[in-house]
Amino acid sequence: MAPLIVDIHTHVYPPAYMEMLRGRKTVPYVHDPADKSTPRLIILSSDDDPSIPLDQRGRPVDASYYDIDVKLAFMRRHGINCSVISLANPWLDFLAPDEAQTWAERINNDIEATCARVNQTTDPDNTRTLHNKETLFAFGALPLSAPSPDIVVNEIKRLKTLPHLRGVIMGTSGLGAGLDDPRLDPIWGALEETESLLFLHPHYGLPDEAFGGAEAMNRYGHVLPLALGFPLETTIAVTRMLLAGVFDRFPRLKILLAHSGGTLPFLAGRIESCIHHERKFVANGGDVAGPQRSVWEVLKTNIYLDAVVYGTAGLNAAMTASGADRLLFGTDHPFFPPLDGKEGDEWPSVTTNYKAINDAFNTEDESVAAVLGGNAARILNLK
Amino acid sequence: MAPLIVDIHTHVYPPAYMEMLRGRKTVPYVHDPADKSTPRLIILSSDDDPSIPLDQRGRPVDASYYDIDVKLAFMRRHGINCSVISLANPWLDFLAPDEAQTWAERINNDIEATCARVNQTTDPDNTRTLHNKETLFAFGALPLSAPSPDIVVNEIKRLKTLPHLRGVIMGTSGLGAGLDDPRLDPIWGALEETESLLFLHPHYGLPDEAFGGAEAMNRYGHVLPLALGFPLETTIAVTRMLLAGVFDRFPRLKILLAHSGGTLPFLAGRIESCIHHERKFVANGGDVAGPQRSVWEVLKTNIYLDAVVYGTAGLNAAMTASGADRLLFGTDHPFFPPLDGKEGDEWPSVTTNYKAINDAFNTEDESVAAVLGGNAARILNLK
Repeated sequence: MAPLIVDIHTHVYPPAYMEMLRGRKTVPYVHDPADKSTPRLIILSSDDDPSIPLDQRGRPVDASYYDIDVKLAFMRRHGINCSVISLANPWLDFLAPDEAQTWAERINNDIEATCARVNQTTDPDNTRTLHNKETLFAFGALPLSAPSPDIVVNEIKRLKTLPHLRGVIMGTSGLGAGLDDPRLDPIWGALEETESLLFLHPHYGLPDEAFGGAEAMNRYGHVLPLALGFPLETTIAVTRMLLAGVFDRFPRLKILLAHSGGTLPFLAGRIESCIHHERKFVANGGDVAGPQRSVWEVLKTNIYLDAVVYGTAGLNAAMTASGADRLLFGTDHPFFPPLDGKEGDEWPSVTTNYKAINDAFNTEDESVAAVLGGNAARILNLK
Repeated sequence: MAPLIVDIHTHVYPPAYMEMLRGRKTVPYVHDPADKSTPRLIILSSDDDPSIPLDQRGRPVDASYYDIDVKLAFMRRHGINCSVISLANPWLDFLAPDEAQTWAERINNDIEATCARVNQTTDPDNTRTLHNKETLFAFGALPLSAPSPDIVVNEIKRLKTLPHLRGVIMGTSGLGAGLDDPRLDPIWGALEETESLLFLHPHYGLPDEAFGGAEAMNRYGHVLPLALGFPLETTIAVTRMLLAGVFDRFPRLKILLAHSGGTLPFLAGRIESCIHHERKFVANGGDVAGPQRSVWEVLKTNIYLDAVVYGTAGLNAAMTASGADRLLFGTDHPFFPPLDGKEGDEWPSVTTNYKAINDAFNTEDESVAAVLGGNAARILNLK
């Protein structure tokens, strides 16, 4: 039997979110061209270039972003049985404090309703196995700009009561000061207490200066910010959590890192070495607490990694660092469609990851099936 | 017989360089405390904090940096037969244009003389094998701030005539505009023509904002800039070279990347995928040339990686990306000494890398000996 395939990295802009973005005039926003062509999504500050006509600014945001039937067709085309959908970046980070709670509840309810409707349609009597239908589950979004972390905590608890929600998705800014901010402690506590998985995903990239300034960065289109800025952002964010002792204070926190951890598996050894050589930490005679648990231990007990790394080199590092039982297949749909693809084509961005997973393990190894879906079903309790 | 061990990542501040740094009052500079304690090296702008007394600013720069006998003792203690020494960062990047050539020649001659003297001392009749003595070779420094790239080209050619020089070391700023700067073409051409290996090493890190600002970055001492800033800088620099087509125009360029490539082996797949999905490149219908050769091909034909990555996770990625025949042992001496070490102790920063190399390969595999020294001897023609 073909293995169960679960996609844990797949984004949506549900109808309620599109409506909200259409009502905005500053990043992020959606603009509908006068000629009724595909709406434009202006998502990054660098996209919002006044020298580019509004009708061509940003990127096209077609039905694959907001029409769940397009995602279901994509799943069937690639043999995916189950998708754990999540709001795409930048989530709700930018909302005014007094709007955050209302939109979070509305959008999370919208996502829950979509999952319920699709699952009811594909299996009306709820008698089929996960292998034999398309099923949706979801990670919820958090009202991080709300006036108090209590509102975020309440939403985490409420999400736990929605039948198809399996955790939350979050960016790297937290409450605006990064993920080593002690004001996040109640939120980490609520995630731990409710046993909710946190899917940590980049959005903000690195300052333009890291790439030699905006002109140098944009010289190669989106390659530098997407290929490097995103994974480096994730690596910095989770390392700041580690250095601040978040995993010491919340040892049962479970975090799924996008793009196989950014670069965390590769850099784990260097991070650990630098910690052991840092005089500022109490363990070395300094006055800053510093992390108690090693990077390696955190990678094997708190961290899960998606397998969205497009090659065996990265996958081998991820497997060595966290273990094949903590690696989870994903697609990053609807991003990275084929540039010249025809409707119905397979996506190279997906087949590259399938190939890497198959190449990274011995054919007889159970790890392939685990990474493709078994791990996700077990960790997220999908059934 | 124990395998030959060659350290290709080991830095010096030769006497002429220390003298020059002592004559400066702006970063980088050396300050001699009034109480005759260890001189201080103020190397990064962030180290030059006026709120810290000058006598405590920066880091101690002890004899391990400038006294070659200390390095020879370090080599003996760790079983290293041969070291390929290189000037430590920030090299000569900061020199005024009219000083660059003079200092480059003086310092490179100083380094050549040190190698010659040591090798003459350890093997006066030149009859012993590399296994049975301590031998030094070196990478030279370049006068990159000189008024014309021709001066750099001439120094590359001159270095080729010095018996112990085996290539050059360079940072990521190039002529000030990064390594995708077309003005570097004559320099790439000279390196290719003279078959000189380029050792590419970070120094500048990332802008403070990448870490949440200076305060957030310094909260954990040097961990964030050293553990993450350095490797991310290297990754960005070499990716910009790739995207600008440097490896297409100079297909015989040979580059040794510090710290196992920063994070390049891990991110290679993502970089390649983003290139294939970038509309701006000619191959995808755009108007920017874009790279012709794949990241994977460049990793296996132009890139060498040191094995300074402190763990099997990173080493497995490096090996998968470039091959065990392109990985070279290194120590990063004199950086990362044991914090509470006694004279004569082994350094954990070195033993961690030894252990990773031994763990990454089967015991019977010839790759361990190749990574420890065989590759370096072959690639750098050491004898």
